[in-house]
Amino acid sequence: MNTDKKELRVNAIKNGTVIDHIPSEDLFKVIKILGLQNIKNTMTLGNNLESKTQGSKAIIKISELFFKDDDINRIALAAPNAKLNIIKNYEVVEKRQVEVPDTIIGIAQCVNPKCITNHEAVQTHFIVVDKKNIELRCQYCEKITTRKNLRLQ
Amino acid sequence: MNTDKKELRVNAIKNGTVIDHIPSEDLFKVIKILGLQNIKNTMTLGNNLESKTQGSKAIIKISELFFKDDDINRIALAAPNAKLNIIKNYEVVEKRQVEVPDTIIGIAQCVNPKCITNHEAVQTHFIVVDKKNIELRCQYCEKITTRKNLRLQ
Repeated sequence: MNTDKKELRVNAIKNGTVIDHIPSEDLFKVIKILGLQNIKNTMTLGNNLESKTQGSKAIIKISELFFKDDDINRIALAAPNAKLNIIKNYEVVEKRQVEVPDTIIGIAQCVNPKCITNHEAVQTHFIVVDKKNIELRCQYCEKITTRKNLRLQ
Repeated sequence: MNTDKKELRVNAIKNGTVIDHIPSEDLFKVIKILGLQNIKNTMTLGNNLESKTQGSKAIIKISELFFKDDDINRIALAAPNAKLNIIKNYEVVEKRQVEVPDTIIGIAQCVNPKCITNHEAVQTHFIVVDKKNIELRCQYCEKITTRKNLRLQ
């Protein structure tokens, strides 16, 4: 897409990771999942950018940071269609897609206010029952938490 | 500064506001104070950028948004040295500095865990007793909340 190419060009990073196609409303969830508030790497975040495929999107560019598979897949909770470009020496050397994991341990809160995980020091544990729309079934109370009502811990 | 000029050039916005010289560790506080998570305007955020005057800084650029004095001055809690450039038709038409207000109502939490504002539905109310370093004296319990231990509501 021309828009993306133009952005990458003007904001080129030498080495690092570009996370593209994040839904605009979920940018700050992705930031929280990856803990980007607390890292010292140079980063650029764009939000409410024009997207030909999804109306409006966000993008994250981080210098000198390369994520592990686990980190990338946790993004799926907020941005299941995100795409990652791994940049080395100004070139895209690898493209990766988020893969929705089978289980989610921690990170998300159960939507059920009566669930034990909301009252005692018990780590949340979900089975991903719908990978396309992101629906999580709590292993403790069996209630379904969806992407739309997802709150992060 | 050359660094700033280069950034403004490559990321130029047509109309809007650039907030510069935000301390890197306080970018997300400024975002929260201004409620930028919830607005639909196109924005670019840079963090951990090189700064000749403060080591490391953050910058916020928002299209088609112009803040009121009150909003600007609330930023002072997190970024007392922030500078704003108001952009119209790609030109800086006005430069503004954050002015630390005399009182802060709401926004900040009192650092004292026993303060009534942390237990009942009472809006916080602080007198700014040190404008340079940002020190807030609670009107209810008289304890001092500083910029370093500031938590937002």
